[in-house]
Amino acid sequence: MKIEKAVAQRYPQILQLVEQFNMREGQGAVFWEDNVIEELHIVGAEPDKLIWEFKVKEVHCNRLGNLHGGCAATLIDICSSFAVLTNSGKARWNLIGVSTDLSVSYLKGVPAETMIRLECEVQRVGKTLANIFTKVYNDQGQVCYTGSHTKFNIDPKL
Amino acid sequence: MKIEKAVAQRYPQILQLVEQFNMREGQGAVFWEDNVIEELHIVGAEPDKLIWEFKVKEVHCNRLGNLHGGCAATLIDICSSFAVLTNSGKARWNLIGVSTDLSVSYLKGVPAETMIRLECEVQRVGKTLANIFTKVYNDQGQVCYTGSHTKFNIDPKL
Amino acid sequence: MKIEKAVAQRYPQILQLVEQFNMREGQGAVFWEDNVIEELHIVGAEPDKLIWEFKVKEVHCNRLGNLHGGCAATLIDICSSFAVLTNSGKARWNLIGVSTDLSVSYLKGVPAETMIRLECEVQRVGKTLANIFTKVYNDQGQVCYTGSHTKFNIDPKL
Amino acid sequence: MKIEKAVAQRYPQILQLVEQFNMREGQGAVFWEDNVIEELHIVGAEPDKLIWEFKVKEVHCNRLGNLHGGCAATLIDICSSFAVLTNSGKARWNLIGVSTDLSVSYLKGVPAETMIRLECEVQRVGKTLANIFTKVYNDQGQVCYTGSHTKFNIDPKL
Repeated sequence: MKIEKAVAQRYPQILQLVEQFNMREGQGAVFWEDNVIEELHIVGAEPDKLIWEFKVKEVHCNRLGNLHGGCAATLIDICSSFAVLTNSGKARWNLIGVSTDLSVSYLKGVPAETMIRLECEVQRVGKTLANIFTKVYNDQGQVCYTGSHTKFNIDPKL
Repeated sequence: MKIEKAVAQRYPQILQLVEQFNMREGQGAVFWEDNVIEELHIVGAEPDKLIWEFKVKEVHCNRLGNLHGGCAATLIDICSSFAVLTNSGKARWNLIGVSTDLSVSYLKGVPAETMIRLECEVQRVGKTLANIFTKVYNDQGQVCYTGSHTKFNIDPKL
Repeated sequence: MKIEKAVAQRYPQILQLVEQFNMREGQGAVFWEDNVIEELHIVGAEPDKLIWEFKVKEVHCNRLGNLHGGCAATLIDICSSFAVLTNSGKARWNLIGVSTDLSVSYLKGVPAETMIRLECEVQRVGKTLANIFTKVYNDQGQVCYTGSHTKFNIDPKL
Repeated sequence: MKIEKAVAQRYPQILQLVEQFNMREGQGAVFWEDNVIEELHIVGAEPDKLIWEFKVKEVHCNRLGNLHGGCAATLIDICSSFAVLTNSGKARWNLIGVSTDLSVSYLKGVPAETMIRLECEVQRVGKTLANIFTKVYNDQGQVCYTGSHTKFNIDPKL
């Protein structure tokens, strides 16, 4: 997992999370995220928005040669979870919570070797729940997947 | 991917698909499905219903030690797609189509080493679209995930 | 809103809610629920399951003569919310909470004058969240809509 | 249903649909849409985007005094369906199709007398399926609901 320097400086919490995820790299896949981690790259962030790039490899594809729906769901899950930390509202989460609902729409197949772009837009972060909407674009700027993600805060209460 | 003999006999189309998926096994992960394929086991089938077991390993989990949401989505995607072939209605699909929508609800975390059970219930298979609802149970019979899957027929038209 | 006597006796909390909803009847539509309330009938209940019947009238339909998607969503919302009170688990809610997510799949159109049946199955009621899955059948027993509903507890904390 | 002149001129297909919906007004509620039609106002349109305003009345609310979830779903259904006609892509639909999936997330309650704004963004219109994402804002610019809508083309084939 890579992160642009400007994003790392502006969002130290996101940098920290990236480092945590990278810690296990190089020791063989140990966690599910390790199936996608090497190709994930945070390229931009602003209040309530986090932007990623991901290079689709054959290992992320199904037998039709397109990004597997389960891999798309995995990417949307991970990328939109990190986005919670760009929240500009009052409620602050220290952790990125757990999922309660994830709805993915599949609009267009994405073949291997495509560089996709995931734009995660935070709709709201409340004390208990957060909602993030993600659009996944192919390299021609077409929306290929969308995902609505609802997360539940698991920060320990002081 | 394993399949109970009784299911294989009753649903030769499902057996064929299982064999197709297994063909690549042993050559290292080449497709996304290979991340889960070894632990997948079809244990039962009846008209409009397909039942699977899956042993959750650490590689399927997140850093909290629970089955990753993206892996759960991957399992629901694969298992409910196969279920289309148990359809008792008039419309017959030769292939299992592509996803248009997948909505997953996360009710309860599932730790590594749990044997989970996926019950995929076909709601309807039409000429163009199919709908399958999946419940994922832990080894105490509690529902941990549910998934609504809409699929689009890609059978070549004669 | 009607309720079978056996259900009312077994689930006094549901009876109470029915009476609350009926209180405004006869004074003209004041709340959104009043658009469907007269045709709603609770016909059965068991642990974690609530069953309703509803007679589709022309006022519930779109210009194609079928039950409107927004009316189907309204019915699934209301019926599955009541179902929370059939919960057999440990967590008890006094109120039926508010919605966080509702996903509806539309499988088959339902014309006016059809008596539909809504089967609401409680998947889980936790301290904070509840999940209910609903199937809507036409009078030939075909599934026409399904809905996944996630609710958030708003019981006042003592 | 009202429509700004500039939108009507640019999108005659949308104007025509508005007129069709209004034809029954004044004769008492006959269709489900008539429960919301009077307050719906198309205020802006551009390629792949349609913007509406809607004044929430008490009849649209639940007993907690907030816009009912089923009414929110009804509005998202109707508004995003019209948006299909702003599609800038190659595929052209004459009719607005039927729903296959609608997923609504509820972020924040909206009290009666609020003027809400619905922004419907067309993600893709293909030959068979269309996807529209809708955000519903309150009068302080906060996102209160989001909806992902998948539609199925029912244009008669020539």
